[in-house]
Amino acid sequence: MSRKIRMGMVGGGRDAMIGAVHRMAAALDGHIELVCGAFSSDPDKSRASGADLYLPAGRVYGTYREMMEAEAGLPAGERMDFVSIVTPNNVHFPVAKAALEAGFHVMSDKPMTYDLDEALALRELVSATGLQFGLTHNYTGYPMVKEARRLVRDGSIGRVRKVVVEYPQGWLARLEEATGQKQAGWRTDPAQAGISSCIGDIGTHAENLMEYVTGLSITELCADLTTFVAGRRLEDDGNVLVRLQQGATGVLYASQVCAGEENALAIRVYGEQGGLEWHQQEPNTLIVMWADRHREVRRTGVGDLSAAAQGHTRLPPGHPEGFIEAFANLYRNYALTLQARLQGAEPPDGLDFPTVDDGVRGMAFITACVASSASDRKWYPLKEA
Amino acid sequence: MSRKIRMGMVGGGRDAMIGAVHRMAAALDGHIELVCGAFSSDPDKSRASGADLYLPAGRVYGTYREMMEAEAGLPAGERMDFVSIVTPNNVHFPVAKAALEAGFHVMSDKPMTYDLDEALALRELVSATGLQFGLTHNYTGYPMVKEARRLVRDGSIGRVRKVVVEYPQGWLARLEEATGQKQAGWRTDPAQAGISSCIGDIGTHAENLMEYVTGLSITELCADLTTFVAGRRLEDDGNVLVRLQQGATGVLYASQVCAGEENALAIRVYGEQGGLEWHQQEPNTLIVMWADRHREVRRTGVGDLSAAAQGHTRLPPGHPEGFIEAFANLYRNYALTLQARLQGAEPPDGLDFPTVDDGVRGMAFITACVASSASDRKWYPLKEA
Amino acid sequence: MSRKIRMGMVGGGRDAMIGAVHRMAAALDGHIELVCGAFSSDPDKSRASGADLYLPAGRVYGTYREMMEAEAGLPAGERMDFVSIVTPNNVHFPVAKAALEAGFHVMSDKPMTYDLDEALALRELVSATGLQFGLTHNYTGYPMVKEARRLVRDGSIGRVRKVVVEYPQGWLARLEEATGQKQAGWRTDPAQAGISSCIGDIGTHAENLMEYVTGLSITELCADLTTFVAGRRLEDDGNVLVRLQQGATGVLYASQVCAGEENALAIRVYGEQGGLEWHQQEPNTLIVMWADRHREVRRTGVGDLSAAAQGHTRLPPGHPEGFIEAFANLYRNYALTLQARLQGAEPPDGLDFPTVDDGVRGMAFITACVASSASDRKWYPLKEA
Amino acid sequence: MSRKIRMGMVGGGRDAMIGAVHRMAAALDGHIELVCGAFSSDPDKSRASGADLYLPAGRVYGTYREMMEAEAGLPAGERMDFVSIVTPNNVHFPVAKAALEAGFHVMSDKPMTYDLDEALALRELVSATGLQFGLTHNYTGYPMVKEARRLVRDGSIGRVRKVVVEYPQGWLARLEEATGQKQAGWRTDPAQAGISSCIGDIGTHAENLMEYVTGLSITELCADLTTFVAGRRLEDDGNVLVRLQQGATGVLYASQVCAGEENALAIRVYGEQGGLEWHQQEPNTLIVMWADRHREVRRTGVGDLSAAAQGHTRLPPGHPEGFIEAFANLYRNYALTLQARLQGAEPPDGLDFPTVDDGVRGMAFITACVASSASDRKWYPLKEA
Repeated sequence: MSRKIRMGMVGGGRDAMIGAVHRMAAALDGHIELVCGAFSSDPDKSRASGADLYLPAGRVYGTYREMMEAEAGLPAGERMDFVSIVTPNNVHFPVAKAALEAGFHVMSDKPMTYDLDEALALRELVSATGLQFGLTHNYTGYPMVKEARRLVRDGSIGRVRKVVVEYPQGWLARLEEATGQKQAGWRTDPAQAGISSCIGDIGTHAENLMEYVTGLSITELCADLTTFVAGRRLEDDGNVLVRLQQGATGVLYASQVCAGEENALAIRVYGEQGGLEWHQQEPNTLIVMWADRHREVRRTGVGDLSAAAQGHTRLPPGHPEGFIEAFANLYRNYALTLQARLQGAEPPDGLDFPTVDDGVRGMAFITACVASSASDRKWYPLKEA
Repeated sequence: MSRKIRMGMVGGGRDAMIGAVHRMAAALDGHIELVCGAFSSDPDKSRASGADLYLPAGRVYGTYREMMEAEAGLPAGERMDFVSIVTPNNVHFPVAKAALEAGFHVMSDKPMTYDLDEALALRELVSATGLQFGLTHNYTGYPMVKEARRLVRDGSIGRVRKVVVEYPQGWLARLEEATGQKQAGWRTDPAQAGISSCIGDIGTHAENLMEYVTGLSITELCADLTTFVAGRRLEDDGNVLVRLQQGATGVLYASQVCAGEENALAIRVYGEQGGLEWHQQEPNTLIVMWADRHREVRRTGVGDLSAAAQGHTRLPPGHPEGFIEAFANLYRNYALTLQARLQGAEPPDGLDFPTVDDGVRGMAFITACVASSASDRKWYPLKEA
Repeated sequence: MSRKIRMGMVGGGRDAMIGAVHRMAAALDGHIELVCGAFSSDPDKSRASGADLYLPAGRVYGTYREMMEAEAGLPAGERMDFVSIVTPNNVHFPVAKAALEAGFHVMSDKPMTYDLDEALALRELVSATGLQFGLTHNYTGYPMVKEARRLVRDGSIGRVRKVVVEYPQGWLARLEEATGQKQAGWRTDPAQAGISSCIGDIGTHAENLMEYVTGLSITELCADLTTFVAGRRLEDDGNVLVRLQQGATGVLYASQVCAGEENALAIRVYGEQGGLEWHQQEPNTLIVMWADRHREVRRTGVGDLSAAAQGHTRLPPGHPEGFIEAFANLYRNYALTLQARLQGAEPPDGLDFPTVDDGVRGMAFITACVASSASDRKWYPLKEA
Repeated sequence: MSRKIRMGMVGGGRDAMIGAVHRMAAALDGHIELVCGAFSSDPDKSRASGADLYLPAGRVYGTYREMMEAEAGLPAGERMDFVSIVTPNNVHFPVAKAALEAGFHVMSDKPMTYDLDEALALRELVSATGLQFGLTHNYTGYPMVKEARRLVRDGSIGRVRKVVVEYPQGWLARLEEATGQKQAGWRTDPAQAGISSCIGDIGTHAENLMEYVTGLSITELCADLTTFVAGRRLEDDGNVLVRLQQGATGVLYASQVCAGEENALAIRVYGEQGGLEWHQQEPNTLIVMWADRHREVRRTGVGDLSAAAQGHTRLPPGHPEGFIEAFANLYRNYALTLQARLQGAEPPDGLDFPTVDDGVRGMAFITACVASSASDRKWYPLKEA
C-alpha cells in the first residue's frame, strides 16, 4: 500500500525565502507530508515557524542534531523519511552528513556544499550509505526544459555547435547586504556562501542547465568575474567562455547587478540542423528554429511533445505552470522514486531529479571559475577533483 | 489556536480535470487539508480516487448525500469544514444545497448553477444559512489582475471608456464529444451544462473578469452566438457587444473553436488617461499605457505594486507563478477567512474571493446572451431576475 | 524602353503627414519620379513645399485645376503620368474627377471619397475613362498579409469560421482638434472627413484587411459607435459585430481614444484546421496556429513562403521592413502595372493593389456602420448601393 | 539654393544584395539622386544594371577608374558629388582611394578595408584631402539606438557596468559557398573578405554598436573563434569577452551558424541605476529597466524621447520603421551635412554618421579578435596601430 512520504525540514524559518518554496513544491502533488522541522538556528524562531505550519510542538526541533536523534527514535510508521535542507550553503554538508548517518534520505538545496572537498566527501557518503540524495537544480524540472533536452538528445537539431546561457539578475545592484536584507547577507558572506556569490548562487544553475539540456560536459572555461558594488566581499558578476565535449563552444554569463532584471535565466542551443531557445520567465514556451523552415513555438500541453515534457505537465494548454510547479516536479519525482524504493519496487520511469553527481559538477564549476578569473591562463580545465 | 481547515470534495475523480486543480490549489499554502470526498457518481471510481489521494477508506464516500450525513455525524474536531464542488454544472446546486443544509461551508466551481433560477435560490439559501460560499472565478486570483483592478479603482487610468475581453480556445474545433472525451462530453451536453457551452464555460469568466477589473456592471448586451461544429448541441462561439455603467462600452468574445488557441483569455481596459492590458497566458505581466508617456511593464514582485498584488504573490520577481497559484489564492483567502470566522475573529483584510453574488451575475449573463442571440432586438438588458 | 513613371501630387504640403509617406513610398524602388505638385490650397505653402522637394518652380502649382491644365499641355515625354491624391477626404473626389477627365491616372488616399454617392460616381468614371485607379489601403502591402491571404485562399487553415480585426489608436483620447493640431482638425470635421471619423479613417482599413485576407465579404453588421471626447463632432470609437459570406462571423473594432495605443491594427482568422494572427506593429511576423500541431512563426524572408509574400519583400530575413515598405509595395505595383500598360504589355503577375471597387466597399461600410449605430435593428446589411 | 546631392555607385549590380539597400536608403528622403555607377567588374553586367536603374547609358561605366575619370571631367553642375562603395571588402580601399584622389566624397560599406594597414592609410588620406567620408554602420541609424545612447550619455542609467551584444545569424550553417551563392562566396573567401568572415562581417557591427551606445571603448578582449562548417576557409563563429573603459565588462558574440536565426543583433547595457535592451529585429522598441521601478517600453514616435531619437523618426507612433529607414538616416545625415558644406554653411546639428575613425576601430577589433583567438594569452589589447 502506498503512503505519503514524510519530510522533515532543516532551515526555512519565518524570514527565509527558499524554504517556503520547498514546502509548497513538496505539498503540491499530495505525495509528501511535512512532519517535522528544525527551521532555524534560533529555537524560538524554529518553534514559531513550526506553529505557522500547524506542526505539533513535539515535532519542531531546536537544532538539526536534535531532530535527527529524536526522529530516529520514533516508530517506523511515524518518523520522517527524508530531510529537506534549505539552509545557507555552509550548513548543507553538516546537515546532509548527519541525516545520512542517521539513516535518512536527503533532498538538498544548491550549491550542494560549501566547497569542492565537501562535495567529494558527500558523494562518497551517499555512495556508502546507499541512501537517496536529491539536489534542487529546479530549472531542470520545467517541462519545456525536458523537451529541449529531448530535442538535443534525439538528434533533432543535429550535433550541437554553440550554447549560450545567460542568467542576469538585478537584486544586488546596490549594497543590499548593508541594509540587513537577510538573503543578501548570507549570499555575499564568504563564511556562509563559500568562495563565490554570483557564480555559486546562479552560475551553477546556468552550468547545470547547459549540461542537462545538451548532455555535454564543460571541459574548459575562461572566466572574468567582477565585484561591481563597492564594499561587497564576493563577486557579483561573471562572464565565462566555455568549451564543451564534442567540439561545442559556448558563452555563460551570470550577474546579480544587472539593474532592472528579475531572474532572467535563458538558454539557446544551436546544432547543425536547428536551434532551441528557452526563457525561464516564460517557461511554458520553447522556441524551436530550423535551418530551412519556419520556427515552431512549442507550448506546454500542446501537440506531440516528448513523454518527458508531458510527464512533467499538470494542466491543459494555456494554463500556465511556473516556478513552483517545476520545483514540485523534482519533489514529486524524488517522492515517487522513494516510495517505490520503500516498497521494494523498481523506480518509476522518466522521473529524474538532480543527484549528488550534479552537485559535484556544480562545485567543480565554481572552483574553476574563481581560479580562472584569477589566472592569466586563457583556458582552465573544469575538473571534479 | 489556528488549525488547518478541513476540506471534503464532491467530484474530481480519476478522469476529471478540474478536481485535481482544486486539490493542488487547496494544498499549496498548507492551510487546508483534504479529509474526505465523494469523487465520482461511480462508487468504485470514488474509492479508487480516494486511495490515490492517500485518504482513509472510511472517509471516501459513494455519494455526496452519504458524505454530508456521515461527516455531519463526526466529532467537531474531525469532520470537514467545507465542501469543494467540482462536478458538472447540473450537480452544483444540489450538492451546494445539501451541504449548506447540513451546515457545511461551500466552495464551488463555476458557472454557479445549471440555470438562473437555481442561482437565485442558492443566493437565498446562502443568505439564510449565513454560511461561507466561494466561487472559483479563479482568474481574479492573479496578482496582476488585482493590480489592474486597483489601477482602475483608484482612478489612475481615469474614467473607463472601453473594455475588451477576449477568450479564444481551440480545443473544441472538432466534434470531440463524439470521441468519448469526457470534458467535451458534458460541457456540450444541455442536460449537464445548461443552455450554453461556450458562454457558460468561459464567457462567464470573461464577464466576471470584465466586471471585477473595471468595477462596472454590464447593463445591456448584444450577442451573436454560433454553433460552428456540425452535430454539436450547444453553441461553441460567441461575439458580444456590451454596454457598462457610466457610459463605458465594450466587446467580449469567447470561442471554443479558434483552432490553435490554447486558453488565451485577455483583457484591455482604456480610460481617459491610460490603458491596461493583461494576458492570462503571461499572467505575471501587466502592461500599463499612458496617453502621454512611455508604457510600463508591471511585473509580479517588482517595485511599488498595490498591496493587493503583493498580497497575492508568493515569490520574488522573475519566478513565474501560474494558474495553480492564482487558483490557490482563492483557496487561501477562503481558508483564512473561514479560519478567522471559526475563531470568532474579524476576517483578514484584502483576502477577497468571488461569492454567490458573482455567481448570480454569471448566470444572468449566460441567460441574457442566449436570449439576445435569438432576438432581433439590438440591445438586451442584463438582469439578475 | 522602360522609363520612370512620372507622378504629380495634390496635397501633402509642409505640415501634412501622409503626403510625405506617399512620396517616400513612391521613391523607394526607383520606378517613380515626382515631377510636379499642387501641395496646398495655399499657393505660398505649395511653392515652399515644392522647393523643399527640389522641384523646379514651374512645376509647382497653386491649385490642382491649374496643375491638370498645365500638365496636360506639356509634351508627352514630360508631363506627369498619374496624380497622387493626399488631401483630406472631401477633396478626393473632385481631384480624382478632374484628373481622370484630363486623362491622368490616379492613386488616391483612403477613404476613397466623402460619401458613398461620390464613390459610386467615381467607379463609373474610372470605368468610363479606362484609366488606372489605385487606392492606398496600404496594410494590404505587407508581405505577411499576402502570406495570410494565401493561407486562407489555398485552404490551408480550412473554411473560415471567425475573424477578429482590432484597430485601437489613442491619439485622439483628448480634444486635440481644439489645440490646432491639423491632423485632428480635419479628421474630426464633418465638412472635411464625412459622416465618420474613427470608422472612416481606420475602420475602413480594418474592413479592407478583413475582406482582403479572408476573401469573404461582410454581408451584415451591428455597430455601436460612440463619441467619447466631449466637444468632438464625430464618433471616435466603434465596436462592430459582423457576419461574412459562407457563414463566418466576426468582430471588428476601431478606436481613436484607446489612450496609450499607437496604431495597433491586428487581425486573427480562425478556420476549421488552424488560425492566423498578424499585428501591424510587428509586421514581419505571421503566427500560424494549427488544431493539432505546434504554432509556426512565419517571418518575412524565411523559408517556403508564398510567391506573393516573397514578391513583396526586399531584404533578407531579420532585416525589418515596415510601414513605408508596405506602402511602397502598392506604389511599385501601381507603377509597374502602369509601365506595362504604357508599353502595351500585359500587366506583370502578382502585383496587386487596391482599386476603385475596394473604395466603394469602404464607403459602403462607413455608411452601414453609421446607420446601424443609429438603429434599433440588430443586423444591418452592408450594401454598395 | 539647395539642390539634390548626386551619387555615383561602385558595385551593387544585379545579383548583389547590399547595393540595392544603399540605393533605397539614398532615395528615401529625396535629398540624393543616383547619377552614375560602375555596378560590376563585368562591364556588361554593369550596363544592364544601369539600365534597370533608368540611368542614361553614358553615365554607366565599365570600371570605377573609368568612372572617376569621366565624372571628374563633367561640368560641376552635373558630375557626381560622392561615391557610394558597395563592393566586397578587398575593393573598398582602392575605390575609396581613387575617389578621394579624384576629389570625390565617399560613403563606404563596412568593414572599411581589407586589413588594418589599409584602414590607417585611408584615415590619413581622408585627413589629407579634407573630403567627407562616411561608413555604413547602419545599425547606429535606428532611432531607439540613438535613444539608448542618450540614456547612457546623460547618466540616466548610471555608470555602465556590463554590456552584452549578441549577433547570431544562421545563413551559413551549411557550406553555402559550395553552392555558388555569391554572398556566401566572397564573405568566406580570404582573398576578398580579409582575415575574418564572421567577426569581419557582423562582429564589427556588434563592436560598433557597443561602443556607440556606451560611449566606452573596448580596451582588451579575449576571443574564441571557431570554424564550424567543414570546408570553410574563415571562421564562422566567435565568442568574445571584453573589457571597456571605466571598468565596464562585457560579452560579445557573433555567429553565422546559429541555424534558424535571422539577423538577431541585440544589445543590453546595465548601469548602476538601470538597464537598456534593444533588438534589431524589433527596432522600434527600447526596453528601459530600472533598479527600483517598473520597466518602460520606449517606442519610436511616442512621448518624450530624446531629440536624437525624434530627429531620426519619420512616422507617427505604431507605424513601424525598419532597416532601410535606419540606413536612410545615415544617408540623409551624410547628404545634409554635405549639402551644408557645399553651401559653405555649418553642418546641421545632431545628424551624425559613422566616420573613418569608426572604420579604423572596426579593423583593429577584427585584428585583435583573430590574434587573441590564436593566442594562449588571456587578455589581448584592442589597439588601433
